[in-house]
Amino acid sequence: MIKLNISTKKRNEIIDITKDIENIVQKEKIENGFLIIFVPHTTAGIIINEGADKNVRYDIIEKMKNIFPKDNNYLHLEGNSDAHIKSSLFGSSEIILIENNNMILGTWQHIFFYEGDGPRNRKIFIKIFVEK
Amino acid sequence: MIKLNISTKKRNEIIDITKDIENIVQKEKIENGFLIIFVPHTTAGIIINEGADKNVRYDIIEKMKNIFPKDNNYLHLEGNSDAHIKSSLFGSSEIILIENNNMILGTWQHIFFYEGDGPRNRKIFIKIFVEK
Amino acid sequence: MIKLNISTKKRNEIIDITKDIENIVQKEKIENGFLIIFVPHTTAGIIINEGADKNVRYDIIEKMKNIFPKDNNYLHLEGNSDAHIKSSLFGSSEIILIENNNMILGTWQHIFFYEGDGPRNRKIFIKIFVEK
Repeated sequence: MIKLNISTKKRNEIIDITKDIENIVQKEKIENGFLIIFVPHTTAGIIINEGADKNVRYDIIEKMKNIFPKDNNYLHLEGNSDAHIKSSLFGSSEIILIENNNMILGTWQHIFFYEGDGPRNRKIFIKIFVEK
Repeated sequence: MIKLNISTKKRNEIIDITKDIENIVQKEKIENGFLIIFVPHTTAGIIINEGADKNVRYDIIEKMKNIFPKDNNYLHLEGNSDAHIKSSLFGSSEIILIENNNMILGTWQHIFFYEGDGPRNRKIFIKIFVEK
Repeated sequence: MIKLNISTKKRNEIIDITKDIENIVQKEKIENGFLIIFVPHTTAGIIINEGADKNVRYDIIEKMKNIFPKDNNYLHLEGNSDAHIKSSLFGSSEIILIENNNMILGTWQHIFFYEGDGPRNRKIFIKIFVEK
């Protein structure tokens, strides 16, 4: 299992981690298999979506803030229920296929770390499984 | 494949299944691998999120009820379209890494079964894959 | 890795791909394992939900359109931010257990391809992993 450290600077942030994951895959020289990316934090998640235009990330954050406002008469007193809900919806993990030493991603797909209650120092776990 | 039976008591319910899954992992004595939790029901799902404060579960349920009300001029006549939509968003499965006989979960992460159209007698499937 | 081609006809569409996946599994004759379905498109996703009544699919599409309208002062100028957000929420992949040459699905569960910015010619990737 490989750990990746991520520092966020805002409350809501979507950070591109595609190259970090790519570097890990290429070091391991995997012909065939898959990898699991797992976030061990309850206000964060992993998103696969368009990476070319940063406005897509902006729109995801803003629209989700609009639907799940920070303050909404939540019972949980830490002021981050919105982030817990969004984390549950984006999901704590992603699974990506590997062939010939490369992740199988679409032309526009990037891998993102989502944080909804930053700024924080976070980590993600990556584990590669080889097909034998 | 291991089956776990779950009985829910309310229409919307989030039930902590962390210890049940933990017991399964520890019986199997897996050094390295991962497990898949799969829900075979279309108004239910699996959520990984904070387990310490029960109010987080309450906030997830209430906010999601607010966005996806039970009655909303849905065409499906069984009165549970809200639950089908939420099930599609939370997702039918989760994948969890295993190392040294333990699930890799964050400090606050618990595993939950979500039901949106209870009370029901439900089951979930757990399958462990070992890395060789 | 197996590729499946899918043509959509509307902007928002949910297409049943259960039989296509079933055919792939049965050709491969897998006793034990799992499969990963991965969509390489950023306005699409995979959903597992009820397949018996087509109105469930209709309700999912319409309610999600209502919450994430096509036009909403998004910054991304391609007019499909709504689809990018929904793709992030439904998720790019699903994982399904296989036992005795069959996918483990619940009575009402079907596997669907979701497109939020069609009509398009799309593809999905399916890879089967065998437990040894």
